[in-house]
Amino acid sequence: MYIQKQRLLTPGPTPLYPPALHAMMASDLHHRTDDFRNVYKSALADLKEVLGTSHDVLLFAASGTGAMDASVSNLFSPGEKVVVCSAGKFGERWVEITKAYGLDPVLLQAEYGQAVSVERVQAALDADPAIRGVFVQASETSTGAAHDVQGMGEAVAKTQAIFVVDAITGIGTMPLDIDNWGLDVVIGGSQKSFMIPPGLAFATVSPKAWAFSETSKLPHYYFDFKKEKKNGDKGESSWTPATSLILALGAALRYIKSIGMPKLVENAQLLASATRDAAAALGLELFAASSPGSSVTAIRAPQGMDSGVIVKEFRKRFGAIIANGQGSMKGQIFRIAHLGYFDFADLFAVVAALELILHANGVDVEFGKGVAAVQRAYARAAVQTPQPVAG
Amino acid sequence: MYIQKQRLLTPGPTPLYPPALHAMMASDLHHRTDDFRNVYKSALADLKEVLGTSHDVLLFAASGTGAMDASVSNLFSPGEKVVVCSAGKFGERWVEITKAYGLDPVLLQAEYGQAVSVERVQAALDADPAIRGVFVQASETSTGAAHDVQGMGEAVAKTQAIFVVDAITGIGTMPLDIDNWGLDVVIGGSQKSFMIPPGLAFATVSPKAWAFSETSKLPHYYFDFKKEKKNGDKGESSWTPATSLILALGAALRYIKSIGMPKLVENAQLLASATRDAAAALGLELFAASSPGSSVTAIRAPQGMDSGVIVKEFRKRFGAIIANGQGSMKGQIFRIAHLGYFDFADLFAVVAALELILHANGVDVEFGKGVAAVQRAYARAAVQTPQPVAG
Repeated sequence: MYIQKQRLLTPGPTPLYPPALHAMMASDLHHRTDDFRNVYKSALADLKEVLGTSHDVLLFAASGTGAMDASVSNLFSPGEKVVVCSAGKFGERWVEITKAYGLDPVLLQAEYGQAVSVERVQAALDADPAIRGVFVQASETSTGAAHDVQGMGEAVAKTQAIFVVDAITGIGTMPLDIDNWGLDVVIGGSQKSFMIPPGLAFATVSPKAWAFSETSKLPHYYFDFKKEKKNGDKGESSWTPATSLILALGAALRYIKSIGMPKLVENAQLLASATRDAAAALGLELFAASSPGSSVTAIRAPQGMDSGVIVKEFRKRFGAIIANGQGSMKGQIFRIAHLGYFDFADLFAVVAALELILHANGVDVEFGKGVAAVQRAYARAAVQTPQPVAG
Repeated sequence: MYIQKQRLLTPGPTPLYPPALHAMMASDLHHRTDDFRNVYKSALADLKEVLGTSHDVLLFAASGTGAMDASVSNLFSPGEKVVVCSAGKFGERWVEITKAYGLDPVLLQAEYGQAVSVERVQAALDADPAIRGVFVQASETSTGAAHDVQGMGEAVAKTQAIFVVDAITGIGTMPLDIDNWGLDVVIGGSQKSFMIPPGLAFATVSPKAWAFSETSKLPHYYFDFKKEKKNGDKGESSWTPATSLILALGAALRYIKSIGMPKLVENAQLLASATRDAAAALGLELFAASSPGSSVTAIRAPQGMDSGVIVKEFRKRFGAIIANGQGSMKGQIFRIAHLGYFDFADLFAVVAALELILHANGVDVEFGKGVAAVQRAYARAAVQTPQPVAG
């Protein structure tokens, strides 16, 4: 074996931002002191700034699914009708959670690789004025498809329902105007665009959603929106906070602020677009071709080849971990992520490695052809106006 | 600015091995305890194993230059005649050190980019039987040229002189049979192939060299070979050791042992050879074409272009730090390193970035052409016998 760096190229956990990792070493503080309250307050303030919202932001020691659970148990009541858009494994998770709490979900399903249209959401809302909520993934991580949350949000805003958006891989990879698009609850997790390890989830809560919390009759204890809001305002978390991760989040947010959220989104969009160009140059077929998101690009394995071979060869030959398909998509597709601490130079390497892996497995590949497609994308985006550099 | 990872692509410091960095966090121990003695002993034992020598290995809290200094002040006496091979900035350092201690160096100089031949060393030894030592760089980092230390060592072994080899960037990038090639003193540093931060230097000492330490009349205190050997055998360092770096070294050595030194060397050789192929594919001229080493490849900037532009653009566009030329070579060449925690996927990215930088500065470059040369080198070396992989 030669040197093989471990490279995390999955849609989560994502490549980590080293200074955020190093910040975790400062965890030798107590969470009920002003030292930590200041850390916590500024992490919450920076998170709010980066998300560009005036809504409250609540932070939980949990994975993203915890905040999904919390958004149901804090805002709804048993028997309430809700619309669930499901276009993949994470849409199916909304179905499971809403059912677990006794809600009555109307399922708007799309085939894997497709997205649920705004029209279908509009029609479901029109059909039943009793609908209390609409649930969706901004970016369906299992297929790489993105939903039109702006269009859906505007449709939901005209009703009494609230719009609950799992944006766990959507944040940082697509524009999300939380306040103006009617995104009542937006859910995120630490191990995605925030480029830190898993363990933190958060939810933004609009005034309309807060009103729902007044009438919700579902039991909950650990995940308590009102309690968390009251404590958060004091720089405290309700229960023991994951201090190391909050220190990491603070460092990552300072970096994200230095880049700027629009540029972070553009980074993912450019990487995704360049990856689609590379796939086309190599004659590979995209899985979510009609509504591709920028968090992850799912690519079909070449005819007659199991995508698991590609995944295993990335690991074996290059120490790189990419994602296979999930469920029935396993063996059919492989997924290259574009979020977290991931730059163009990473993508050059990923596509060069992909070419070598395809070649080694008998696929007719011209070395450098996919890489050149990525280079052209980079040149178009970043080299349009070369600045003179002093020698 | 988009996301730009900082990438250290210089011949030292080199890209760091993350588990070695993390091991530094265990520095909360005292260096005069058995806990640390065990760490120190096994680092010394692993270093000896990795270097493949039966000679004593001495470790110093110092940069590599410290061990160069020590090899003169511990083994020679004022007025003694020595041969110094100088083919770049580091050869010039041997001249400075030997003069600082009052030795009488016979200078065998080669032009920058060239190497000193074995024949010249042989002739100098033949011309003066009083020669007490021969000093050389295994790999001259400033130009990328390598010396034939095997041939030189065999010539020196037949004389009363000792052979002192600065292998700071040679170790891990070229075969070095310390015991059988007559390499009496071999000097290394932590921030090179050992993929950890700067701060540790070491020297191997042959029985022939130890005999020199008995007659040496030069004053020294901090760098004391005999004292360090005596203490090292007990798992101690003479003075306060750089504990964090020794913990890092231990972790890096475990990794290097898992790869194996011959494979680590092959890794650097393949990367260097692939880099030369890429330069040729892009019509770029190598600086040390006649005796290229594998620690670093120095490439001439295209006609009419300052190499500093390339260095600055790597930093500006890709967050990557590559080396310019030193001294009179500044502006003429740029240097891409192949040592440390550096793999093929890194090189794909470096060459793709180089193509983009050349293109952005008006050089006629076909995107992907240099990358394809690297891919072909990788495929020849590592993809000759594709193993079937279960799906």
